[in-house]
Amino acid sequence: MSANAESIQDKNSTLSATLSKEFTQPFSGSKKIYVRGSRDDINVGMREVICANTSSSFGEEENPPITLYDTSGPYTESDAGLDLMRGLPHLRKSWIDERKDTEVLSGPSSEYGYVRQNDPRTSHLRFAHYHPPRRAKPGKNVTQMHYAKRGIITPEMEYIAIREDMRLQQHKNDPRYQKLLKQHAGVNFGANLPNKITPEFVRDEVASGRAIIPNNINHPESEPMIIGRNFLVKINTNLGNSAVTSSIEEEVEKMVWSVRWGGDTVMDLSTGKHIHETREWIIRNSPVPIGTVPIYQALEKVNGKAEELSWEIFKDTLIEQAEQGVDYFTIHAGVRLAYVPMTADRVTGIVSRGGSIMAKWCLAHHQENFLFTHFDDICEIMKAYDVAFSLGDGLRPGSIADANDAAQFAELETLGELTKTAWDHDVQVMIEGPGHIPMQMIKENFDKELEDCFEAPFYTLGPLTTDIAPGYDHITSAIGAANIGWYGTAMLCYVTPKEHLGLPNKQDVRDGVVAYKIAAHAADLAKGHPGAQIRDNALSKARFEFRWEDQFNLSLDPEHARKLHDETLPKDSAKVAHFCSMCGPHFCSMKITQDVRDYAAKQGIETIPVAIEKGLQEKAQEFKQSGSQIYQKV
Amino acid sequence: MSANAESIQDKNSTLSATLSKEFTQPFSGSKKIYVRGSRDDINVGMREVICANTSSSFGEEENPPITLYDTSGPYTESDAGLDLMRGLPHLRKSWIDERKDTEVLSGPSSEYGYVRQNDPRTSHLRFAHYHPPRRAKPGKNVTQMHYAKRGIITPEMEYIAIREDMRLQQHKNDPRYQKLLKQHAGVNFGANLPNKITPEFVRDEVASGRAIIPNNINHPESEPMIIGRNFLVKINTNLGNSAVTSSIEEEVEKMVWSVRWGGDTVMDLSTGKHIHETREWIIRNSPVPIGTVPIYQALEKVNGKAEELSWEIFKDTLIEQAEQGVDYFTIHAGVRLAYVPMTADRVTGIVSRGGSIMAKWCLAHHQENFLFTHFDDICEIMKAYDVAFSLGDGLRPGSIADANDAAQFAELETLGELTKTAWDHDVQVMIEGPGHIPMQMIKENFDKELEDCFEAPFYTLGPLTTDIAPGYDHITSAIGAANIGWYGTAMLCYVTPKEHLGLPNKQDVRDGVVAYKIAAHAADLAKGHPGAQIRDNALSKARFEFRWEDQFNLSLDPEHARKLHDETLPKDSAKVAHFCSMCGPHFCSMKITQDVRDYAAKQGIETIPVAIEKGLQEKAQEFKQSGSQIYQKV
Repeated sequence: MSANAESIQDKNSTLSATLSKEFTQPFSGSKKIYVRGSRDDINVGMREVICANTSSSFGEEENPPITLYDTSGPYTESDAGLDLMRGLPHLRKSWIDERKDTEVLSGPSSEYGYVRQNDPRTSHLRFAHYHPPRRAKPGKNVTQMHYAKRGIITPEMEYIAIREDMRLQQHKNDPRYQKLLKQHAGVNFGANLPNKITPEFVRDEVASGRAIIPNNINHPESEPMIIGRNFLVKINTNLGNSAVTSSIEEEVEKMVWSVRWGGDTVMDLSTGKHIHETREWIIRNSPVPIGTVPIYQALEKVNGKAEELSWEIFKDTLIEQAEQGVDYFTIHAGVRLAYVPMTADRVTGIVSRGGSIMAKWCLAHHQENFLFTHFDDICEIMKAYDVAFSLGDGLRPGSIADANDAAQFAELETLGELTKTAWDHDVQVMIEGPGHIPMQMIKENFDKELEDCFEAPFYTLGPLTTDIAPGYDHITSAIGAANIGWYGTAMLCYVTPKEHLGLPNKQDVRDGVVAYKIAAHAADLAKGHPGAQIRDNALSKARFEFRWEDQFNLSLDPEHARKLHDETLPKDSAKVAHFCSMCGPHFCSMKITQDVRDYAAKQGIETIPVAIEKGLQEKAQEFKQSGSQIYQKV
Repeated sequence: MSANAESIQDKNSTLSATLSKEFTQPFSGSKKIYVRGSRDDINVGMREVICANTSSSFGEEENPPITLYDTSGPYTESDAGLDLMRGLPHLRKSWIDERKDTEVLSGPSSEYGYVRQNDPRTSHLRFAHYHPPRRAKPGKNVTQMHYAKRGIITPEMEYIAIREDMRLQQHKNDPRYQKLLKQHAGVNFGANLPNKITPEFVRDEVASGRAIIPNNINHPESEPMIIGRNFLVKINTNLGNSAVTSSIEEEVEKMVWSVRWGGDTVMDLSTGKHIHETREWIIRNSPVPIGTVPIYQALEKVNGKAEELSWEIFKDTLIEQAEQGVDYFTIHAGVRLAYVPMTADRVTGIVSRGGSIMAKWCLAHHQENFLFTHFDDICEIMKAYDVAFSLGDGLRPGSIADANDAAQFAELETLGELTKTAWDHDVQVMIEGPGHIPMQMIKENFDKELEDCFEAPFYTLGPLTTDIAPGYDHITSAIGAANIGWYGTAMLCYVTPKEHLGLPNKQDVRDGVVAYKIAAHAADLAKGHPGAQIRDNALSKARFEFRWEDQFNLSLDPEHARKLHDETLPKDSAKVAHFCSMCGPHFCSMKITQDVRDYAAKQGIETIPVAIEKGLQEKAQEFKQSGSQIYQKV
């Protein structure tokens, strides 16, 4: 452990070189596996859940292990031996190197980044194993979209194709899987879900702008993932200290916590002290893409006075963060001067922080939003590092009353225009969406995004489907998120129970992530994503066969499921019992169903349909007649 | 307190003559009000939330009190002085009396009820202030449907019209409400929501079978409510001890707890000892309709041996429960012999307890379901007490894999036929629905119910939209419930986090109820129910104006919202602060929005739109041109 690391430990009781077991222990009944691609250095981490055999009372059979998409990175490896002080291994370094279109700088090229890197007052907070940043060589464009448009399939794209497949291709001819592969047809509203996800399909989706791969060349630790409506629905989690509470250590822990439960990306929304250092720690240890809202930090640099913001300060902030490795930036370039007045009659005005900052700036200067006027300049920065746009919805509705109003839709149209501009630079784009929308207006909102923004991936906060449940907004919004995900939204930004009330703690983050994994998975099922239903089928089969441990292990939160079970029937024997606490031993419907099957078997007849046909045909006829009589009589 | 009551107290530590404050204290900032109808004895309880004035920084104005639908009965009156040993007052007694179509019996007319009422061994458990049951006079039919079809508007119907209106008619011309009345148009899939709910409309809906009023003449304590898709979406909660855990006292408390948080009806699913006595206590103290699944108790009478069930035992159970005052019965008459084999290939077979009991009986006897063959006999009992049918979905899917399959739909068609039969007897009917359905198949399920069952109200359990989240099934199912509620389902049966895992405790019940109030309200908003959005608008206005207490008080669970807020900013001063913990004092977007408004005001210009027009017109033109150039350049 370095001296720096020790000094951090001295200062802080919570961050240590390795995280406590609660953050990193492998999930029960699961192991981390790696699926190799076309080359030695493409190894895609997944989670495999080992299942017990079906017991003889349910007809003995072997149940195959189930492969799950895994966002937790190396943290859930049983012997990862990770050192937070060093950060994660640079998984993508060789892929970036071999493209030979980047150069390693001597240090930060942003003014602020340089000062911060050399400030002795913050040395005790600084990430110890600093790597100087990398940037596109002059004239080069290093975005995945740029490669994709030129027909290049990058290792990142192949990694993603393997990852999204979850070994479906490998398993689909395995007889043990046949029962589990049963899947209902989806209704996917015109999306184009392939039966088999190939690297070429990934390339094509990125080239068309329908999907993005957020992976800054300065975040080589991240595991490639894709956001697009023809792939699995993703979820984002938010972290961030504020002036009022929280600290660096908590944020790093929360990041690991988020990815443990299934966060596909993490937005660092810090607004307090040491934003720069917090972000460095998070990125260096994050296996998932990190997003930020650079205007928050820029505002901090002008002491919170929105009117003192300038393009120069903002530009320097973009470069600072791009060189740290932020994978996508929320940019509120659609809050145009002319749209601000449209919010005056709203019930809840402007609720986006970024939106209100830019609105204030516009009015203070009587000028158009400088993010809008400098949009080409921003694109130039984005393509030098492969930072993706998350075009911010600064005028999103903050209440049901303000949903889908003129201000929101005017901004959305502008985001569409900006998308075209970004694509002309081969910069990847996703579009942020609301907010608060009642159910009947969600489809309209999605359809408008799809049309106005030329199918760029939609990335929505919720939406919350009612305003009346503060304290439960992970639920009000999971309803909206599941629906908009089904319609085709590519990524869902989670909402915790603390929304509108306070800053989420660890439990809130877990509750929010799980609620959103539910919404995303419900959407995947509804769209008919290939292989989405295998996990449901495997879990339900385990449930029916009283394989309690398998039921827990296949669930989104095994610990919680086990804990709730044990509240009523804590004994270990209850977990192998062929009944449960809801009905007790005599009343179990699953047991009775099995009795029904057994009964048929005892008659020496192989299956119930045959039993009915053979033994009860006459009776059935009789009852049909008697039934008919009943209706005639009435 | 009677001797009996004391003996209960001696035996039990939890039940006392009055419930503890946690169950009964009025909600903060709220008071119970009564809205009088056309006669002295029609007084509809509602909850009124008092709101503070808007502070001067947001433009001082008076905010009107908000009226909420209230299921909690007299329990939340500040001076109710209730005595659980006596039960609630007989609110509907005079209405029943004056119809002169019922007679009071000397005691229970069911064999079992008689024995139980006179068994000295259970006297210490028995409700002390027993009232002998009432029954229709020979040849009379006492159902609300019967009256409705004859053009009679009962006091129950008027009560409901007042209740569903929530004082909208009274307030809509009040200038203080104008801002709050803003409501988006709903998409109600062909339902017929009136702008004004009249007693005549209620009568018409009941006569047509599109809505039911479950209120047994032996449950005069209940406050009339309606279940139908042209009214507010309702939610049901389930209670019930089992052989493994729980007790009478807990169940009574849970009932009060359920209605406190918003349960519109309660199903008593007890399967353990003292079912009869537990039910009596619950009904005598319940302000909401009580439903049961009589087959559970009938099975207990034959020691859990399904094959020993008989029409005679079942019939006696129906009478026993009808005379106690059960308002609706789940009857699994649609589980026909021929349908049972259709479940053999399912992933999760038959998961309904009632369904599996009847399936077992059918196979054991090689006979048609006796509930089906005796359906007319059942109707005769129902109409003598006005018990409504809740036609059970014994073959509902227990997993996503089994959704909308042949077994489920075959049963649904039979339920439609039975509905016709019941209606011929003027017996009220609702139809139970699943279960586990992926989102894309929910609409089909609802549409089929509507068509096959001739628009009888649908009453669904969830549905759960994925199987993979045991421990969070209040959320997996709230998603499905909100959607199916929007499509037109009249009542949503709640699911708690303990579903599939164990028996719900107090916290689980609260979590389940609130999740379902969210789903029901989201559905009301989406359908465009008149006045549904007022509460959202009032709460959002309070939120925007930093009226923290009003935000809490208007929410579904004020205590929880306050608690979460206080976790981050516990000081009382923070609740009047014009910022919150999420962003801190400098970053508050709501504050900035207000600054934007103030800024415009400072310029001596009245509104921002005018400000823009007057001062910025020239600039705007300039920016528009500059903007155009940007796009031309790219």
